Amino acid sequence: MTPWNQVTIIGTGLIGGSLGLALKQAGAARRVVGVGHRQSTLDQALACGAADAVTLDPAEGVRGSDLVVLATAVGLFEPLLVQAASDLAEEAVVIDVGSTKAEICRTLPPLLPAGRVFVGCHPIAGSEKRGVDFAYSDLFAGATCVVTPAADAPPDAVARVIATWETVGMQVVQMDPASHDRLLAQVSHLPHAAAAALALTVSPEAERLTGTGWADVTRVASGDPVLWRDILVTNADGVVEALETFEQRLGDLREALAAGDTERLQRLLARAKESRDRIAGP
Amino acid sequence: MTPWNQVTIIGTGLIGGSLGLALKQAGAARRVVGVGHRQSTLDQALACGAADAVTLDPAEGVRGSDLVVLATAVGLFEPLLVQAASDLAEEAVVIDVGSTKAEICRTLPPLLPAGRVFVGCHPIAGSEKRGVDFAYSDLFAGATCVVTPAADAPPDAVARVIATWETVGMQVVQMDPASHDRLLAQVSHLPHAAAAALALTVSPEAERLTGTGWADVTRVASGDPVLWRDILVTNADGVVEALETFEQRLGDLREALAAGDTERLQRLLARAKESRDRIAGP
Repeated sequence: MTPWNQVTIIGTGLIGGSLGLALKQAGAARRVVGVGHRQSTLDQALACGAADAVTLDPAEGVRGSDLVVLATAVGLFEPLLVQAASDLAEEAVVIDVGSTKAEICRTLPPLLPAGRVFVGCHPIAGSEKRGVDFAYSDLFAGATCVVTPAADAPPDAVARVIATWETVGMQVVQMDPASHDRLLAQVSHLPHAAAAALALTVSPEAERLTGTGWADVTRVASGDPVLWRDILVTNADGVVEALETFEQRLGDLREALAAGDTERLQRLLARAKESRDRIAGP
Repeated sequence: MTPWNQVTIIGTGLIGGSLGLALKQAGAARRVVGVGHRQSTLDQALACGAADAVTLDPAEGVRGSDLVVLATAVGLFEPLLVQAASDLAEEAVVIDVGSTKAEICRTLPPLLPAGRVFVGCHPIAGSEKRGVDFAYSDLFAGATCVVTPAADAPPDAVARVIATWETVGMQVVQMDPASHDRLLAQVSHLPHAAAAALALTVSPEAERLTGTGWADVTRVASGDPVLWRDILVTNADGVVEALETFEQRLGDLREALAAGDTERLQRLLARAKESRDRIAGP
């Protein structure tokens, strides 16, 4: 792909920092500008090579960039874009890396001056860790990125965005924002809520009896509460729908157990294992 | 501790095989006899040093042993003990490694001839992997073992069982079988049911959108369905009780979400993170 002349990454944490490193390593960005709200984080981003220049000012940060990436918590996208919008270069492409898409793809495009293009993106990569300390250029390799372009988005800009994610090793899937949110509720937002609820179910006496299984099941609940609050709130309908399906599956297991129906219980557990092994490997 | 002259391990899988290796490495057993239902597994146990002798016959296997360990799926403890009971040495100590304790500690002791002692044990170690292939002597190091002796169990035998688990690196906690089951439901059996229900909630279109978070949350659902069926069935009351608490916590999250109560949602997520980080590390 043709490299971007200058890419501005607003939010140089785990995802933003890793993207800076990956874009530079792949030769997909000639120059990367990092924008953050703490100088110490920006200094780290500079030091590890995730950015070539840094600033605390979003408006200053986006000037002259042909690609701007919103990589903060989703709740900050709107206020940050409001600050930077009038300084966006003509024909700048703005993308995000948010975990929900419908609300973002509805609220952000109207904030852009004419000629600028917004393309919603969700690279499904990351961890419960935060910060540029944990950033690495291979974070995206082999993972899936969902791109949710508006129907009227210029095909050239969309193609370039897709090529950018492919350049850092991702498999790109296109869908509409509502479908993204419904599906991500099932595989990410609901599991987060379930992990949190599991962590809240342990009594003090039971704490010392947890093992590696419990640590695995609840790991995502160590994620940042504010970040996840915003993700869940911006996909409330999708999460509530997924919760309903989940509670039906829990109910199936509970009924089989309460009725002593061992055959049905085994069938459900076997189907769950089959699904888990097929999707994530045994 | 005084080493056992001969330890028979019935079920030389991940746990039984690892225990054979650990006991020998710690010098806690002069000789280990492995009992299994497949010759190929027994050959592997011999080859890797998890046992010094092997047999397919439980009655033959327990002869002359001062410690017998039941390390199969919990559903097999009773039939295997019936086969072997009359061949147990005088004053033999029988322990198990089952994930539930109340039913086991009620049904197994009456099967033993006079003079033999049963002590229920649950070393909280292992993984979703199965088989002696994955066995290693450090499996138990640093983990917790719950021991649930009957009120009339000879103190010497109980002390020797506890010393055995400590010798392979475990921290031993004593409690009654019912308390064990109630607490383990919270930290192991419920999380298994939740992971299975999450794996059953994913629609076919959503499968390719799963990431490392989903793989972590659902990992335990890759466990053997028959083994887990038996664990859940032998602790049905405890699991149903834990499911009710879990559904209340899920309901809290859902209500906060549906009501748009972002403060409450954040508070719940923050408490979940605090609990998870305190118990399993951030």
